[in-house]
Amino acid sequence: MSLPTAVKIVEVAPRDGLQNESAFVPTDVKIELVNRLSQAGFQNIESASFVSPKWVPQMADGADVMAGIARRPGTIYSALTPNLRGFEAAQAAKVDEVAIFGSASEAFCQRNINCSIEESIARFEPVAQAAKVAGLRLRGSISCAFHCPYQGEVSVESTVNVARRMLALGCVEIDICDTIGAASATQVGRVMRAVAEHVDPAMLSGHFHDTYGQGVANVLAALQAGISIIHASTAGLGGCPYAKGATGNVATEDVLYLLHGMGIETGIDLDSVVDTGQWISSHLGRKASSNAGNALAARKQLA
Amino acid sequence: MSLPTAVKIVEVAPRDGLQNESAFVPTDVKIELVNRLSQAGFQNIESASFVSPKWVPQMADGADVMAGIARRPGTIYSALTPNLRGFEAAQAAKVDEVAIFGSASEAFCQRNINCSIEESIARFEPVAQAAKVAGLRLRGSISCAFHCPYQGEVSVESTVNVARRMLALGCVEIDICDTIGAASATQVGRVMRAVAEHVDPAMLSGHFHDTYGQGVANVLAALQAGISIIHASTAGLGGCPYAKGATGNVATEDVLYLLHGMGIETGIDLDSVVDTGQWISSHLGRKASSNAGNALAARKQLA
Repeated sequence: MSLPTAVKIVEVAPRDGLQNESAFVPTDVKIELVNRLSQAGFQNIESASFVSPKWVPQMADGADVMAGIARRPGTIYSALTPNLRGFEAAQAAKVDEVAIFGSASEAFCQRNINCSIEESIARFEPVAQAAKVAGLRLRGSISCAFHCPYQGEVSVESTVNVARRMLALGCVEIDICDTIGAASATQVGRVMRAVAEHVDPAMLSGHFHDTYGQGVANVLAALQAGISIIHASTAGLGGCPYAKGATGNVATEDVLYLLHGMGIETGIDLDSVVDTGQWISSHLGRKASSNAGNALAARKQLA
Repeated sequence: MSLPTAVKIVEVAPRDGLQNESAFVPTDVKIELVNRLSQAGFQNIESASFVSPKWVPQMADGADVMAGIARRPGTIYSALTPNLRGFEAAQAAKVDEVAIFGSASEAFCQRNINCSIEESIARFEPVAQAAKVAGLRLRGSISCAFHCPYQGEVSVESTVNVARRMLALGCVEIDICDTIGAASATQVGRVMRAVAEHVDPAMLSGHFHDTYGQGVANVLAALQAGISIIHASTAGLGGCPYAKGATGNVATEDVLYLLHGMGIETGIDLDSVVDTGQWISSHLGRKASSNAGNALAARKQLA
């Protein structure tokens, strides 16, 4: 079994992580979070979302966040852009990468954006075209690539189909997302290998949740299937809207512990991520949702 | 990569899990815990420890626990017996399996039992002999098989050596334990494969901790290395004495979610384990330390 020698982490705490926070996180805290993360060495930080503030009030200050951060050479600051209006705002804010968000589940698509998968792809076309014209990196995220909260297990064919459509739209990176954290390690391997028959595996990323404690194991399964880009959220920020009180994104600290323990390079300073995880959790008034983060922080206090 | 089709879980919550609790857990609660677990279908429940009550006051009522439980045919009720006195008490209490506890770390051995690894093996001989005469199953646990809180990484040779000595003593099952949860998935594979060159892998078990969030991934790595016996603790009971406040044993609920998700049979009813995990955690006055346990319990409440 061959594992990658280096892995790129896409750090999603500032966007995916904070998005579900009920209390508005001040803009200066968001800026400090992004800055701390870029100083820790992340190559890609999902920093904002240019969606209607009516839908996601927490992300209403995306332009201010992008204007306030200190850009680190080598870090891609990415943002979500569901439509042309969002794209234009993202472009004005000088993001380095825009992400479109689709779903492999027909039921999820219908319930969440009130259209079919096919229609959702059509809606992405103007954004994809604009990104091409602007010369901006385009990333495509596929939610419910394994399971859906409404329809249960999603077929491999459906995920493969959406990935191919994302590729045709010009995406240079495609996220295979276990939105509800229900994927098994064997399913992760199966789906990743099936998609990799149609999309260069170097362009694929794995986005896992720890809802049922499978996040790190699923990262391992993805690496074993040839994936070398992994999404993670510092302090495990981001709950699961489909299981109240449940854990959300797999914690970056735990993923780094796995990768560094296996001798896989990330270019990221785990120690600095642990500090940032404790800092932002303290700001949010709770314990970090990361075993490695909390254990390493406790060890530091003793030292 | 071939995975086992069936896995035996050794459930350690009643002993390893409760042992570190500072407040004494009433005997009737311990009995109910063991009974709930045997009803859930576990084949082996580590139910008591026959050590000096001066060392481990929490386990002082082992004989009463063993006398009070309802024995389920098909379940092995095991107990720790560090010496002949403990063995005799365990035998009188009619346990089905006795376990001796060694360490692969010379430093850990010296600090914890004030003797060398060689001397510790010699101390186990009378217990092993008595178990043979009594026709009782003998299990051997090897702590610090990967890392040691005092000496750091432990050599593969040392773990292989202790496993061979345990085999020579007559152990029919040998536990390869990541006492501080610091093992990486690749290290788990490497050590398990090395030991399996000297001991039938069907006799080896993996005992992992979730201190740094690696428990489930390390279980996966062990399965991939041909291991089909896994230790786990319902509700993740059992802290880590070497990192205050850190998570302890990998949670049985999370391990079952992994195994069942991969289509591996265990004979255990996850739903019932989730209930038991919530019940005992509520008794102990805290949230269960199991993502799967808490998420599945939350889903039940909504249903």
